[in-house]
Amino acid sequence: MMEKEKLKELISQLKYDANGLIPAIIQDAENGQVLMFAFMNQESLEQTIQSGFATYWSRSRQKFWVKGESSGHTQKVKNIYYDCDKDCLLVKIEQKVAACHKGYRTCFFTELTEEGPKIIAEKVFDESEVY
Amino acid sequence: MMEKEKLKELISQLKYDANGLIPAIIQDAENGQVLMFAFMNQESLEQTIQSGFATYWSRSRQKFWVKGESSGHTQKVKNIYYDCDKDCLLVKIEQKVAACHKGYRTCFFTELTEEGPKIIAEKVFDESEVY
Repeated sequence: MMEKEKLKELISQLKYDANGLIPAIIQDAENGQVLMFAFMNQESLEQTIQSGFATYWSRSRQKFWVKGESSGHTQKVKNIYYDCDKDCLLVKIEQKVAACHKGYRTCFFTELTEEGPKIIAEKVFDESEVY
Repeated sequence: MMEKEKLKELISQLKYDANGLIPAIIQDAENGQVLMFAFMNQESLEQTIQSGFATYWSRSRQKFWVKGESSGHTQKVKNIYYDCDKDCLLVKIEQKVAACHKGYRTCFFTELTEEGPKIIAEKVFDESEVY
């Protein structure tokens, strides 16, 4: 079997939900910061591997979404892992500028505390100028 | 309003799916390793905060699941964050022994490579003796 077919077979053996989606945890390959959470389907995972840039399936827009294609905030893929249940991906990436469309490097910039929400990060870009 | 009620209100404002669930990414608070992925519901999140130990909702068993209650591999919660869409949690924890029931510290012990699956970790306990 050719490499490409083997890879396709492995991808097809992962577990997708009723909508054909698999959750993906996106982590900064360099410092380990969890940056965002999104969904892929079989095809966007294949595209991610082929292109080397994280490509998701947008549930709200029902289309492929190459992260950063409009903002320039792309995610170069370093490694992809899947979990013991084969139903979740961990993708280690090199993030350009920031992952979050709200101006923060990570989407997880709010801590849930007993005193209420607490912003724990500084903005790294002005989202009104990019999005 | 009392602290407890404020916290309950904040928790109720997060976004849960049609089954009342919110995905939770579990990360080692010390070294940043992503350990597992699971689901909480509103009540298990409240329990997690109240007890200080990660408590999930098991979709397969349809019941609360205090991680480590049988294995002893508990997860002491350090910080909880939610993302910009309020539909995903990031929980930083102190992991006892290991998160994965297959003997590895992390559930993400398999890399998806063009040559096939690649185990990237060593077992830290004998799962046949624990589970």
